[in-house]
Amino acid sequence: MPKPAPVYILGGAQTDFARNWTKEGKHFVGPMREVVLAALEATKIEPREVESAHVGNFAAELYAHQGHLGAFFLEIDPTFRGLPTSRHEAACASGSIAILAASAEIEAGRYDLECVVGVEQMKTVDSTTGGDYLGTAAWYERESKGIDFPFPKLFGRLGDEYDKRYGLKDEHLARISAINYANAKRNPNAQTRTWFMSESQAQRESKFNQVIGGRIKVSDCSQVTDGAAALFLASEKFAAQWAKRNGKKLEDLPRILGWGHRTAPLEFDLKVEESRENTYVLPHTREAILDAFRRAGISGVEQLQAIETHDCFTTSEYMAIDHFGITKPGESWKAVEEGLIEMGGRIPINPSGGLIGAGHPVGCTGVRQMLDCFKQVSGTAGDYQVEGAKMCAMLNIGGSGTTSCSFVVGK
Amino acid sequence: MPKPAPVYILGGAQTDFARNWTKEGKHFVGPMREVVLAALEATKIEPREVESAHVGNFAAELYAHQGHLGAFFLEIDPTFRGLPTSRHEAACASGSIAILAASAEIEAGRYDLECVVGVEQMKTVDSTTGGDYLGTAAWYERESKGIDFPFPKLFGRLGDEYDKRYGLKDEHLARISAINYANAKRNPNAQTRTWFMSESQAQRESKFNQVIGGRIKVSDCSQVTDGAAALFLASEKFAAQWAKRNGKKLEDLPRILGWGHRTAPLEFDLKVEESRENTYVLPHTREAILDAFRRAGISGVEQLQAIETHDCFTTSEYMAIDHFGITKPGESWKAVEEGLIEMGGRIPINPSGGLIGAGHPVGCTGVRQMLDCFKQVSGTAGDYQVEGAKMCAMLNIGGSGTTSCSFVVGK
Repeated sequence: MPKPAPVYILGGAQTDFARNWTKEGKHFVGPMREVVLAALEATKIEPREVESAHVGNFAAELYAHQGHLGAFFLEIDPTFRGLPTSRHEAACASGSIAILAASAEIEAGRYDLECVVGVEQMKTVDSTTGGDYLGTAAWYERESKGIDFPFPKLFGRLGDEYDKRYGLKDEHLARISAINYANAKRNPNAQTRTWFMSESQAQRESKFNQVIGGRIKVSDCSQVTDGAAALFLASEKFAAQWAKRNGKKLEDLPRILGWGHRTAPLEFDLKVEESRENTYVLPHTREAILDAFRRAGISGVEQLQAIETHDCFTTSEYMAIDHFGITKPGESWKAVEEGLIEMGGRIPINPSGGLIGAGHPVGCTGVRQMLDCFKQVSGTAGDYQVEGAKMCAMLNIGGSGTTSCSFVVGK
Repeated sequence: MPKPAPVYILGGAQTDFARNWTKEGKHFVGPMREVVLAALEATKIEPREVESAHVGNFAAELYAHQGHLGAFFLEIDPTFRGLPTSRHEAACASGSIAILAASAEIEAGRYDLECVVGVEQMKTVDSTTGGDYLGTAAWYERESKGIDFPFPKLFGRLGDEYDKRYGLKDEHLARISAINYANAKRNPNAQTRTWFMSESQAQRESKFNQVIGGRIKVSDCSQVTDGAAALFLASEKFAAQWAKRNGKKLEDLPRILGWGHRTAPLEFDLKVEESRENTYVLPHTREAILDAFRRAGISGVEQLQAIETHDCFTTSEYMAIDHFGITKPGESWKAVEEGLIEMGGRIPINPSGGLIGAGHPVGCTGVRQMLDCFKQVSGTAGDYQVEGAKMCAMLNIGGSGTTSCSFVVGK
């Protein structure tokens, strides 16, 4: 098999995840427009240069009673009229699916410059209704219908499964929460940057830290977020001319070095049943990461300097630690205790604050994660920069570990 | 630019569009499973050979309160566990967007055999609610909110625009309706195959043919349909070995010869305003068709033997006639009067019966159209075979002419 054509990341932008678009009286197209214009400005790309646009979105049909999301890209600039657009969905992994679709087109030689936008407006409904909408990322009739907040319960059971197989202490989940909140304080776009969450507060149940379902308390949860992020992906041809006119070298531009994409059965019970004999609780997630490593030509996590992972709940980050190979299966707690995953540690996880600290606008998250990987490897992450980051990975998950997408970003 | 790698169509299957899954007590995953198993059987492909799956679906979030459609592919066969899956959406063009995503991956060399499934379950709600859901394919807040059946009204206005620019007689729309109903009688999977609609009945308003909005009567409308269709797309590598084991020649297998994909502004008013100086009412749709022709290396419609087009309403088929270049702009009526578009005519449109006769399960339609093009060029269309069909084109539209996807299929 010949090596695929390289896919370069030229940069992008994200909205401030602390915003509430409904309170601002805004339809999602407003912030979507803002973020693409900001991405154009940040990258010095002209609208006329964009050849195709891909939108990642989970459920605007429910949150905003609107489909046909790709077409809203045309509202950003009159130049975009005629542009091929589309929308891609795999629940909370929708952003990554949009990236995969865009990068396949570049590898196929269809286009030279593409925009990928992730967008989700979630604060249009109350929390119970929102919890129900999120339940459509699982098998609704079998796992969500009639259940308040089905997802915290499903990911609580991920923790239960770890507990059963290897033992799991709540103090390690609390530490994961506190690290994400702490990291978010350095990210000027993080939703929780002005909030407070200490390890001890995350550990105990209180009026401010209620149990949502099973072992999942408020502190274990990612946020309900309105957010958009945009990225420009380019072929070698466009990247070379773009590098030249910006006084950069082509070899200094970040690329998608590898990707992995796998699907596990929708129902959480089936996932667990299927993995019973496996040392990994979510073996398909592990495979997605290994696929990304293999395509990037790296032997493992030791070649990475940072990770952006899908901490929709503290249990999913706990899972990511061993699934990335930072520890042996079931020993994620060691990485937590040893401080490996903190800023300044051997392999910081979620310098951005992740889904818990930075926020989780569902269909946007994969795009935001790649933008943050881009920032890390290009040394433009500001206060949340991991020193010397040359290669980063991300993991974006849809459903209860159903769709797993992983990417390695570097030069 | 080097020629892209060829994408072969190995075959597929569709469900009987006359079925009502809700009355059968079925979740959409049941018929989705049936249709993929039927496609596997029809093509003698083993489940273990499938490397990736793409689902086209418009709005399961609304009709079935379910997202994450790609993952449902795994429910079809246990062998599919781990497979990369995704869902793609551009309203009524969702099926084509799934085809574009799958074929890009094949051209990129990512996979050798992919399954594309289009699926929509629409008969879960009453017609007014369904009409409102379809309104999310337009800009809901601006064009659909509070309006009963917004889409017939939007496409009625497409007819009004033709009338204003070139004149339009209702008798020609009635003839288009009657041809689609007549063609559907030969298609064993068509929803209306046992219904009756003559030209004179389609022309007059009656108790059985009420006005839905503007110039659009019941006879001008496509159907509300539960339906699924599946297709297998393959690289040259897989197609060659598949041909060999089935005693076929690689050069006899149908391929996607060319494609076009364009987006116009969402709002119908803006489309019309923008095209005011253009001889074509929907210039971006025209461009999508020309792009498909150009990529297929053909000079025009005279090289085609049949067309499957998006007759969501008779006015959209009227538009397709001149936009495909069968007549000069505004002269579609000539092709209708001269019988060019009927079975036995120079260029039959919708031998299947189209969206009016065969049915219109929204996110499935693009996949069903390509399956019918495949059947025509492989001489397997049975009673609705166009004699000597070697090359066919399709046009699939999302929204009020917003997303346009066109493909040329042939050997």
